[in-house]
Amino acid sequence: MEAKPMTDFSKLCIHTITTRPWPLDGAIRHYAAAGVAGISVWRQAIEGQDPVQAGRRIREAGMAVVSLVRGGFYPALGKKDRQKAIRENLRIIDEAAALGAPHIVLVCGAVPGQPLGESRKQIREGIQATLEHAAAAGVKLAIEPLHPMYADSRSAVNTLSQANDMAEAIDSPLVGVAVDVYHLWWDPQLEQQIRRCGRLGKILAFHICDWKSPTEDLLNDRGLMGEGCIPIRRIRGWVESTGFAGFNEVEIFSTSRWAGDQEHWLQEILRAYREAS
Amino acid sequence: MEAKPMTDFSKLCIHTITTRPWPLDGAIRHYAAAGVAGISVWRQAIEGQDPVQAGRRIREAGMAVVSLVRGGFYPALGKKDRQKAIRENLRIIDEAAALGAPHIVLVCGAVPGQPLGESRKQIREGIQATLEHAAAAGVKLAIEPLHPMYADSRSAVNTLSQANDMAEAIDSPLVGVAVDVYHLWWDPQLEQQIRRCGRLGKILAFHICDWKSPTEDLLNDRGLMGEGCIPIRRIRGWVESTGFAGFNEVEIFSTSRWAGDQEHWLQEILRAYREAS
Repeated sequence: MEAKPMTDFSKLCIHTITTRPWPLDGAIRHYAAAGVAGISVWRQAIEGQDPVQAGRRIREAGMAVVSLVRGGFYPALGKKDRQKAIRENLRIIDEAAALGAPHIVLVCGAVPGQPLGESRKQIREGIQATLEHAAAAGVKLAIEPLHPMYADSRSAVNTLSQANDMAEAIDSPLVGVAVDVYHLWWDPQLEQQIRRCGRLGKILAFHICDWKSPTEDLLNDRGLMGEGCIPIRRIRGWVESTGFAGFNEVEIFSTSRWAGDQEHWLQEILRAYREAS
Repeated sequence: MEAKPMTDFSKLCIHTITTRPWPLDGAIRHYAAAGVAGISVWRQAIEGQDPVQAGRRIREAGMAVVSLVRGGFYPALGKKDRQKAIRENLRIIDEAAALGAPHIVLVCGAVPGQPLGESRKQIREGIQATLEHAAAAGVKLAIEPLHPMYADSRSAVNTLSQANDMAEAIDSPLVGVAVDVYHLWWDPQLEQQIRRCGRLGKILAFHICDWKSPTEDLLNDRGLMGEGCIPIRRIRGWVESTGFAGFNEVEIFSTSRWAGDQEHWLQEILRAYREAS
């Protein structure tokens, strides 16, 4: 069943990377003025800043901090590098707590040439090694399955089924999944796997954008909702029917959009959010 | 279990698209001189030629015609266009028979925005509508699952599991699958699904190349075996352990390789075939 169109922005969250040319304060100002309710903060956007202050500025502007993006990248060929990744993730958890973000989105990582099964084992161990710290900080971890075209170097977790398997295996109330339509729309098991993690209360985030035909670049040619072939409203219907009541997070990497006027781009996002999300 | 390295070229087949700048006769001459045993003919390579003559020239050069590439593209929004696609596939079957190709590789098709389930239904119906003709011509049809990054416009069949489901549903000795490592390497179900179609005797073709990190283009940046992260020898081991004794078909779309000297490129393929396939 398709979800109903969104008529206001009370569930709209935008990832800072979507308007990448704007520094954090520009994003806060423009999003808030447009009535956007939430913001997901990419780490680059607060680099060199005090995350406590950044979080405060977001809340003072009337917005919610929805998530910190991104942790993960646990796999590595050597043990030292894996331990380094775990230490980095502990720092990211501190950053999320300081920012006031309830969860971190995990791009889990992969090492070209290392068997994917081995990378998945390292991902599980990496997450587990940070759980105590995450619990103390009150920060959840959202495993984001990435499109199979990123299996070489970005994530060995490439379907919602695999993310659910991993979240179940870790079996912690701190660990859930992020459902991103860009990565998952093609999967014939998607509806069933959304039901599965929904039943377990493990959907921590829902990300939207679109898949353009043709897509010119593997990384930075995502489409605005309505520009592509993803049945966003249908997928949102599946997610909401599990009881998920969180934000619809617009996360769009687009070299061509970043090159244009960002105020105009934000207006297009608002229009597309109502018309095609 | 990994397969053993290839020590000769008796199972080596090259797709004409791999050395795209060469016309068919150039490919035949160079492949044969190098001891390549088989050739898979892309339709573009015989456009405007008599396929009977083309097939004869290949066999006279001492090579086998391994497959005709490619049929498919069944889905369309309108019934007329779907019927047109079926007529085109009947012509492709005639072409394969004339060429002496035992099977056609099917890139099944998809229509941006049309639900993938509907496209898959149209694919099944399209294949079924050509079965009688294929039987009379003695030509088999190999469903090739394509990487999920092609789900928008090239194929709604994106995993070997789906291809196997479709081949089982059609349930004809004429219909099998093509296993291409580029499309399938990331799938945690791959080994099990290779066993499944192997048991049914449905593996009609095995295609090799590699996945480069980074991959610069969704279509034409495939890697030579050994240049990327695909465990080719392990996957070949799975395929061979089902009893598959067909060719290892090198199919590489690469703008940068096509821009270089093709004789040198062919030598690199031969080297990589022994070292990394």
